[in-house]
Amino acid sequence: MNTGLSKSDPMDLAMRLAQAAFAAGEVPVGAVITDANGKLIASAGNEMQALSDATAHAEMQVIQRAMKATGQARLDGFDIWVTLEPCAMCAGAIAHARLRRLYYGAPDVKGGAVDNGPCLFHQPTIHHKPEIYGGISEAESAALLRRFFETRRKSAESP
Amino acid sequence: MNTGLSKSDPMDLAMRLAQAAFAAGEVPVGAVITDANGKLIASAGNEMQALSDATAHAEMQVIQRAMKATGQARLDGFDIWVTLEPCAMCAGAIAHARLRRLYYGAPDVKGGAVDNGPCLFHQPTIHHKPEIYGGISEAESAALLRRFFETRRKSAESP
Repeated sequence: MNTGLSKSDPMDLAMRLAQAAFAAGEVPVGAVITDANGKLIASAGNEMQALSDATAHAEMQVIQRAMKATGQARLDGFDIWVTLEPCAMCAGAIAHARLRRLYYGAPDVKGGAVDNGPCLFHQPTIHHKPEIYGGISEAESAALLRRFFETRRKSAESP
Repeated sequence: MNTGLSKSDPMDLAMRLAQAAFAAGEVPVGAVITDANGKLIASAGNEMQALSDATAHAEMQVIQRAMKATGQARLDGFDIWVTLEPCAMCAGAIAHARLRRLYYGAPDVKGGAVDNGPCLFHQPTIHHKPEIYGGISEAESAALLRRFFETRRKSAESP
């Protein structure tokens, strides 16, 4: 769902985290959690390479950091901003954390689980559904991801 | 899918971890990862209360521990044994970790995402599907969970 919203400060920060992830050799995705008043609670980029952990997606990292930062097991009333449509693992984590709103950047036709694939929040068994706003900084996020995978393909092809 | 398999050592250990989780006030779920030869690599119970983290399911914990223990970001050829059908978050993590086999105990009609709900591994966009064996130690696992929720209901009802 594209709400027509323009860039916002948290998504700008998430984009900067995605760029930093790129520079570190990670798939460039960044995520931020803000509280009900828009105050920054936690931020993270993808850390799969850094942690040697295929589950260390930016969303998992930022959710776990926000829980540590607040001492809360759930993040009711908080919002998550992520540069790419979350996968099933991360969408499931967003439901468990009971986040209020999900703002995301580029859709992920192959790996996304929010508006693509299993469309998890539309499943009858889902126990919590955030408000969902897609397409924020979509072009910028998609371009960064495209550039990352092109660079990786080129370095794989070079002798 | 009930394969008619009887109890096995890893599932016995997973059940003991579920019982320990119960004793610690956690929803009683346990999980174990073994390598291709059946050697124990990592084990965990639910730790949502202990870590004050709604995402600290036994499967997430055991997958992350197995990655730390082996230094591998993926667990190709390894198997996971869990006493309850995984949710979408954990099924997604199992796909990311590329686990070879998923053995699980009780089905979870409400929260499960393997043979219930979104049936994640049957989605066309899933990038990795383990072999799936359900119903192992099912009765024992289901009884433990039932007892836990009965106990919790009773203590909520008491004045």
